[in-house]
Amino acid sequence: MNDTATATALERVAGHRHRFNARFETYFDSLAADLGTPARSRFTPRCLELLRDLSLRGGKRLRVALLHEAARLVTTDDVPGLDEAALSIELLQTHGLIHDDIIDDAPARRGGPSTYYAYREEFPRHEQTALGLAVLAGDLAAFLSLRVLLDADIPAELRQAMLRVQTDAAADTVTGQILDLERDFVPLPDEELLHTVTDYKTTRYSILAPLRLGLLAAGEDPAHHDARLRRYATLVGIYEQMRDDYLDLFGDENVVGKPSGSDLRAGRRSYALSAVLAAATDDERAVVESALGDPHGTSATVDRVREIARHRGVEDRLRSDMRRYAEEASAEAASWHHWREEAVTFFARLPLWSVERAL
Amino acid sequence: MNDTATATALERVAGHRHRFNARFETYFDSLAADLGTPARSRFTPRCLELLRDLSLRGGKRLRVALLHEAARLVTTDDVPGLDEAALSIELLQTHGLIHDDIIDDAPARRGGPSTYYAYREEFPRHEQTALGLAVLAGDLAAFLSLRVLLDADIPAELRQAMLRVQTDAAADTVTGQILDLERDFVPLPDEELLHTVTDYKTTRYSILAPLRLGLLAAGEDPAHHDARLRRYATLVGIYEQMRDDYLDLFGDENVVGKPSGSDLRAGRRSYALSAVLAAATDDERAVVESALGDPHGTSATVDRVREIARHRGVEDRLRSDMRRYAEEASAEAASWHHWREEAVTFFARLPLWSVERAL
Repeated sequence: MNDTATATALERVAGHRHRFNARFETYFDSLAADLGTPARSRFTPRCLELLRDLSLRGGKRLRVALLHEAARLVTTDDVPGLDEAALSIELLQTHGLIHDDIIDDAPARRGGPSTYYAYREEFPRHEQTALGLAVLAGDLAAFLSLRVLLDADIPAELRQAMLRVQTDAAADTVTGQILDLERDFVPLPDEELLHTVTDYKTTRYSILAPLRLGLLAAGEDPAHHDARLRRYATLVGIYEQMRDDYLDLFGDENVVGKPSGSDLRAGRRSYALSAVLAAATDDERAVVESALGDPHGTSATVDRVREIARHRGVEDRLRSDMRRYAEEASAEAASWHHWREEAVTFFARLPLWSVERAL
Repeated sequence: MNDTATATALERVAGHRHRFNARFETYFDSLAADLGTPARSRFTPRCLELLRDLSLRGGKRLRVALLHEAARLVTTDDVPGLDEAALSIELLQTHGLIHDDIIDDAPARRGGPSTYYAYREEFPRHEQTALGLAVLAGDLAAFLSLRVLLDADIPAELRQAMLRVQTDAAADTVTGQILDLERDFVPLPDEELLHTVTDYKTTRYSILAPLRLGLLAAGEDPAHHDARLRRYATLVGIYEQMRDDYLDLFGDENVVGKPSGSDLRAGRRSYALSAVLAAATDDERAVVESALGDPHGTSATVDRVREIARHRGVEDRLRSDMRRYAEEASAEAASWHHWREEAVTFFARLPLWSVERAL
């Protein structure tokens, strides 16, 4: 593990992203014809356009990198089915983001308007229509994410195994979103609950499913490696979520790309805010509780909560927790001696790089 | 075609419904365990309970009857995969109803609260949570409807052909829902547009997909019969939609089970209301236009629109149109000489019975 390994890992992530983005554009180019949408409709092409906009505005494509590198654990040959798996993964993500932004009433996503708010802008006097169209756009992305797998030119048994992974991941993510809403009604979520939310809401579809799909496509049965894949995915899921929660309270707005304290204003009892609540004195807890879920909370309020968090050692604890989870994930991957070393190094390097970059 | 044939068709629909409802209950009994939902969550079992309640409160199960009778066009043997196909069809319906009731802000469904309003009742001070949970309940039903097909103990190729039918139907239905919203921004939708909405929104998933799934499971390739299946489905879809639209304006509230004029209040330019707009004088059209989309419209307003409709011959025209479409559908089915006569009679009898019952 050295700087060269990190640079290589970063380059590979960039390469996967680059190739995938081109493929994703091609997918959307032929989608309207493929779906056979009626010629006279204007709303249908607009829906596809919004799906395309949000989908192509897609960050670092970590899921796609995990998928391709999982296949490279086994082989460097061209692996049929990986392209469709990547499309499926990112379309499921598009589905999740669109509905998530309805659930959170969130105006912005990935540096642009959320689909919900794009529609609200277009239908200022028809809020119900805007809501309806956003719900439907999310639904369409969900069905497309499974439909695209049916087009993969691979053996029926493999296609089926991949569909199983994705439908299970999709159902688990819904459970995770429900748990996420439930958590915010729990006065003081303990770590076990927070980890469970992370597992269902993020880990299973974002990390475990791409690993499984990559291995499946490469001819390996992920069931034979279930314990180690789950362990790695769980650890990565936790530090990734902790990092997001950490940056939301302690990060630089200009770097993170959204206002600090959005979890606080939304009433989300994140890893960071749950830790603050647990560590605070009664008086401090009253401050945090009154700010939690107040959408009009000022930046002074966020500053005050941040101060409490620092004073009670929450910032340091989160940083060391993240490092610990990333190191455990890295060690887990480093023990995968039965797989190709180059890809093993990628998986071992990734957690350290992800956490270092954030801290 | 005689009374005996009708009675037999009705009995068979009832038999399919009865067997299916028992199977649907069993499905929900094992769902929580099957999904592996976390033990500490209360929101997740509540979501499954609401899915179950709505799903089991399910009308005449015409889709299930179409599915089973389509298989009986080919064979009276037990056909593996039909049970899972029926579950898939009705879970997709549950998904559609939940999201539809969000889109329409509808409090009631199938003689009980809509899932959205059930949640609103439970979270009177957290409207956004209620909306979120309803969106998620609908999402879960969508994924379950595809997931259940993966469990069918049938050859992989057949399973995938069935998945293809259902994912295509699901995507088409989203397009149909979008078209449905779009139609209400068209001042005077012509018949072609109304038929297109019906085709995408209803016919494809409710009639064509069950026919295709039944034939597939019975070993017949529906692609070989595509033109006749589409023709039958299109005609049935049109008279079924016309009947709903007709009953909404002209039906007896006590028989229909919901207040008359709900399309008028919701601003839906249905077959009935589009026909009124087309036939009305300028003054009458102004009356209808001002009532369209007014959620507080009184029953006197609905009476006035109904009077206009009757006076302009819309009631009679709709009745004769429905009869004509049903007769054409019946004649189409009656020409299916290559299939088993008993099931052909069922398909030929069904349209006449459906329309006669309504008029």
